[in-house]
Amino acid sequence: MLTANADIISARGGTTIEITRCLVQDMQKARPAHAPSITKRAEDILADPDIEVVVEVMGGVEPAWTYIARALDSGKHVVTANKELMARHGRELLKSAEDKGLDLLFEAAVCAGIPVIQSLKNQLSGNRVRSIMGIVNGTTNYILTRMHADRAEYNEVLAEAQEKGFAEADPTADVENFDAQSKLAILCGLAFACAVRPEDIYRQGIGHIETTDIEYAELLGYRVKSVAIGRQEDGKIEARVHPAMVSLANPLSKVDGPNNAVLLQGDFVGDLMLFGSGAGKDATASAVVGDLIEIARNRHSGAHGRIGSTNFEEKPIQDVSDSLNRYYLRVTSEDRPRALGQIALAFGDNDVSLSALEMHELPESRSELVFLTHQACEANFMATLDAIRELPMIEKLDNWIRVVS
Amino acid sequence: MLTANADIISARGGTTIEITRCLVQDMQKARPAHAPSITKRAEDILADPDIEVVVEVMGGVEPAWTYIARALDSGKHVVTANKELMARHGRELLKSAEDKGLDLLFEAAVCAGIPVIQSLKNQLSGNRVRSIMGIVNGTTNYILTRMHADRAEYNEVLAEAQEKGFAEADPTADVENFDAQSKLAILCGLAFACAVRPEDIYRQGIGHIETTDIEYAELLGYRVKSVAIGRQEDGKIEARVHPAMVSLANPLSKVDGPNNAVLLQGDFVGDLMLFGSGAGKDATASAVVGDLIEIARNRHSGAHGRIGSTNFEEKPIQDVSDSLNRYYLRVTSEDRPRALGQIALAFGDNDVSLSALEMHELPESRSELVFLTHQACEANFMATLDAIRELPMIEKLDNWIRVVS
Repeated sequence: MLTANADIISARGGTTIEITRCLVQDMQKARPAHAPSITKRAEDILADPDIEVVVEVMGGVEPAWTYIARALDSGKHVVTANKELMARHGRELLKSAEDKGLDLLFEAAVCAGIPVIQSLKNQLSGNRVRSIMGIVNGTTNYILTRMHADRAEYNEVLAEAQEKGFAEADPTADVENFDAQSKLAILCGLAFACAVRPEDIYRQGIGHIETTDIEYAELLGYRVKSVAIGRQEDGKIEARVHPAMVSLANPLSKVDGPNNAVLLQGDFVGDLMLFGSGAGKDATASAVVGDLIEIARNRHSGAHGRIGSTNFEEKPIQDVSDSLNRYYLRVTSEDRPRALGQIALAFGDNDVSLSALEMHELPESRSELVFLTHQACEANFMATLDAIRELPMIEKLDNWIRVVS
Repeated sequence: MLTANADIISARGGTTIEITRCLVQDMQKARPAHAPSITKRAEDILADPDIEVVVEVMGGVEPAWTYIARALDSGKHVVTANKELMARHGRELLKSAEDKGLDLLFEAAVCAGIPVIQSLKNQLSGNRVRSIMGIVNGTTNYILTRMHADRAEYNEVLAEAQEKGFAEADPTADVENFDAQSKLAILCGLAFACAVRPEDIYRQGIGHIETTDIEYAELLGYRVKSVAIGRQEDGKIEARVHPAMVSLANPLSKVDGPNNAVLLQGDFVGDLMLFGSGAGKDATASAVVGDLIEIARNRHSGAHGRIGSTNFEEKPIQDVSDSLNRYYLRVTSEDRPRALGQIALAFGDNDVSLSALEMHELPESRSELVFLTHQACEANFMATLDAIRELPMIEKLDNWIRVVS
């Protein structure tokens, strides 16, 4: 991108941006003709006084953390795409950059080229953000989109995604939503100006979603999506990443394949959605180059280390058991007199009210029952599950999924 | 917003933002208790050396132009929501601000709080933007949405929109797409870094859209929307605002009511959509305050007049007759032998190929014929219209609309 668009980048940044040196793992790997000089020694970059900016796109906490800290110590600005590092140690790193009057920019860490971080830091920064809801991981969205489109099983789609390069050999970070957890931590920090650590965020992966659930979602007018939700109410923060049945009325239900989207609600801007490609080398390059142009402009106007929106107050984090949700529940029950009645009472006894029910015959005098609830406190729904599990006619509590309108 | 969110605004801007004086037309009008000091003399603001920033939200070219020019002359930064002024004279005003090291920011001029201007100026500025397609006027979108929802006639919906305050007493600027023309001129300037004057932009209003066209659009899988389209290809700019039948596959088809959305395609970022409320006092406040925070941060870091992305090259503008579109055409024809054949030949003779046809009986041996074409050069489609108009069995050429996939 720096080569292909060198003309507009230097015109808009006020200076030429040149790659001096690249840190690589494998010196022997074939590289394009215009590739910059490479090295295996980080020192060659960190100790080079002519290098003004370090771009970190290696991922993972270490050694990226050490390198970035050292780059800042030696007066270099930093652009990073590292969500895990920024989620875990962004607070200290940003403080360090600020103290030194340096820029530390990280647009590529969340949703690649979609300018969500910049928007939160700048244009929207006069708003109190009430909520963020996003599809922030392309791999899980690709898998769930394919499960909807082809009624394929999770394992089958995952294997195919790995083959196509949409999922990694070890898919844990994506499918267990650790990746989304880091991204949400960064977004909450910016949106609510508070410190949200990844481990503060409730997390559930998508591996338990079955084709049957996908089919019921379609029948009931929903799509199963893996969502990241952050909310601020009465000074309390709610933050969680998990699969959810998203109503067709919600634009996130239409975000398909490897795309990402973030819905924001601010007290003045109202509802805002940013949608685009959330991964891939080109979209990531767009974000990194956008940050580099920002640094070039700061250099031009002698204004590095401008105020960010990251004045991290401590705010209490709500426990997920206190959250309010609607729920989908699928159970297998023996057909007996009073079976449906007793299951339905288990909801009511725990103050959970029902909004929809599907009951279908299964072989051997059994039924599949699917319930949708109205909004209820998660603790009450969990108590309902415990009560239903104890009922004698219940053969299996197949699955439950939170529902998002 | 400056009062309600004073705490976060001063924390994020690095300084308190205080309204010193407001220029008003009517000194007697009832105002809220916390309203700032008012005046009828612009001089009280422009000549006050303690005022650092002038916010212009009066609209129209004059006297806003004079006031903004004078504000810049007296060393004041400016935030404006004035699309017409920025479209017509933004180039000179931005040059003047740059020469003086002042900030002139105008996020609110296009799509209110949706951060499309900031994104184009900053995060996306390393991209060559290939195309912009947007719904940038809330009034026309509200009217067309209502026509779809209720099959109501244009005049009836317009009157209702005027009553509800969604349309002005004189609706010309909105329904004739002058408003959209100004907004597209600004967007093209930023996206393609070139000078696009409003009068360079082909413009067509929405007043000729009939309920029958809305019904055919639904039948064929489209929504009628008023779209703004800017494209850059081979160094040539295409820019136009007009109603179009938008395919349901295009996310713009789902942007309803007074909402706005802009779809961008950049060479690296790929497809990006920004969606939100495009008008109203709160959403406009969000944009203006975002710009004020930017100015406050520039003040804090002593870096006013940072580089924008508005290095206006001159680029040739394509004539709309050279544009490529698909088309919808509705005609009323007498039923005679060879009628359909001759009409169909008129398309083929002008190198326009058909993709869909609806033919319905009308009273008195007449038919309503609706054609959808494949992509064709607009000049060829216009020649087709001329040929069809001459055919003896054609009673009326009811309507034609461009089609957008």
